[in-house]
Amino acid sequence: MPLCVVGSIALDSVETPTERRDNVLGGSAVFFSYAASFFTSVRLAGVVGDDWPAENTAMLQARGIDTAGLQIVPGGKTFRWRGKYQVNMNDRETLDLQLNVLEHFDPVLPETYRRCKFLFLANGSPVLQAKTLDQCPGASLVVADTMDHYIRTEPDALRNLLKRIDGLVLNDSEARLLTGDDNLVRAGDAVRRMGPKFVVLKKGEHGAFFFSEHELYVLPAYPTARVVDPTGAGDSFAGGMMGYLAEQDRFDAKTLKEAMAYGTLTASFTVEDFSLDRLRRITRDDLDRRLEEYKKMLSF
Amino acid sequence: MPLCVVGSIALDSVETPTERRDNVLGGSAVFFSYAASFFTSVRLAGVVGDDWPAENTAMLQARGIDTAGLQIVPGGKTFRWRGKYQVNMNDRETLDLQLNVLEHFDPVLPETYRRCKFLFLANGSPVLQAKTLDQCPGASLVVADTMDHYIRTEPDALRNLLKRIDGLVLNDSEARLLTGDDNLVRAGDAVRRMGPKFVVLKKGEHGAFFFSEHELYVLPAYPTARVVDPTGAGDSFAGGMMGYLAEQDRFDAKTLKEAMAYGTLTASFTVEDFSLDRLRRITRDDLDRRLEEYKKMLSF
Repeated sequence: MPLCVVGSIALDSVETPTERRDNVLGGSAVFFSYAASFFTSVRLAGVVGDDWPAENTAMLQARGIDTAGLQIVPGGKTFRWRGKYQVNMNDRETLDLQLNVLEHFDPVLPETYRRCKFLFLANGSPVLQAKTLDQCPGASLVVADTMDHYIRTEPDALRNLLKRIDGLVLNDSEARLLTGDDNLVRAGDAVRRMGPKFVVLKKGEHGAFFFSEHELYVLPAYPTARVVDPTGAGDSFAGGMMGYLAEQDRFDAKTLKEAMAYGTLTASFTVEDFSLDRLRRITRDDLDRRLEEYKKMLSF
Repeated sequence: MPLCVVGSIALDSVETPTERRDNVLGGSAVFFSYAASFFTSVRLAGVVGDDWPAENTAMLQARGIDTAGLQIVPGGKTFRWRGKYQVNMNDRETLDLQLNVLEHFDPVLPETYRRCKFLFLANGSPVLQAKTLDQCPGASLVVADTMDHYIRTEPDALRNLLKRIDGLVLNDSEARLLTGDDNLVRAGDAVRRMGPKFVVLKKGEHGAFFFSEHELYVLPAYPTARVVDPTGAGDSFAGGMMGYLAEQDRFDAKTLKEAMAYGTLTASFTVEDFSLDRLRRITRDDLDRRLEEYKKMLSF
């Protein structure tokens, strides 16, 4: 089943304690799309300026990612983010953020996108996320991401959106902010009671919780000795997870758990290099091999 | 098989964001012993002052914990620790620490203790840990704990100890301090290369890594919505783990993994109340039931 995603497309500049990269391919919808493309065909919607290198689009298309929904604003500049990671590779500081064309982004989906059964609303304003959702009345699985900025600035729009979606992915600090509860088990459950049928609470290098009415579990991150750049790990997680669900064309409890595992492993590859560099060097076989190791790791 | 433990015995005063307890039973060897007593008979060695309530000793004995190695110093005062947890229930501040009789503790083990096959050197000076180990030449599984204080003040003694033990348990910040590496996967492996056959790297609410020459895995903590007091969680983890190994009387890779799981679950009960209060209300059946849930949680 094709999977539709709407979100940010960026040129990232990343500094780690030992290296840096400038203007590399990034953004929530890009990491998501690439990660999902190991599993299914993807329809990507977003906006860039005319500074966007055409080879980026070609590279995504070569992965089976439909870019009909990619708006290119003449004279506009692509969204840019510059950030710096601390020595622990977990905490990061945003050094510069230029919304550019993203500031006035109006998601208008091509007709083919509107018929997608699987829809992911990547990080963005809940008002725009709702507007996207309005265009896809036939979607049977709608999952959204959010972030601290929108929890603070558009709480009402976010609350309304939560009542309309099937799943929400968010990270630990966002769950605490949204609920005011420091215990993640209680916080995740509280988010679920705000509307979504399930909640995925990501803890970065420590793995992710899953909450539904009848299930609560946690899966650890895959241990990697090689953390080069964590940018995009959360979006890759979501992409691997949704990609697998779309591939399987179902989202029962068992499939959701397998999808959580694939999300975990897709993210574990992403952090092993900058931008999409590590993902571009692996195949679905590498994901499946890591899945077998991961399963073994968790069996006793 | 009986299990011998040498370590601190304390009267703890604990403040959490919502509650406080004064002079409750604590100390590494106490949490360890009680946790291990679900699985095997335990021989506890440590030191207290004559302010130590006799009912504490009686309570431990009622659990099958041998207290022949408990030294009571006439006129002395028991080791006291006072601490305060932050809202996240993970970070804590030591408000007061009185070593008292622990300052001049000289571990001299009773004859029966010296024949134990399973030995745990709970948190303490590596010099005293080595002195304890000297008394048990026949021990076939020796595991030690350590902490930041000794990594800083007695690095050489600790390095020497590491060459003599089978296993080391330590937490994430201690592993980083000992190795200078912020990546926990690399740090855990570096600690292992300092001597021990295996290393258990505890991450508190995020679970624990296991490192041996041929194995690397991580098990998540059991998710609990009820974190009342994390004091003693690490020692309970070690107690559950070592207790299970002593019960099984083997320590092959498979048994070590099961032991890691039992350690995880024993600790998950400890944090659900102050001091030993939660452990005192459960039975081995409760641990086994939680183990089944935990196994199911990690299966897909």
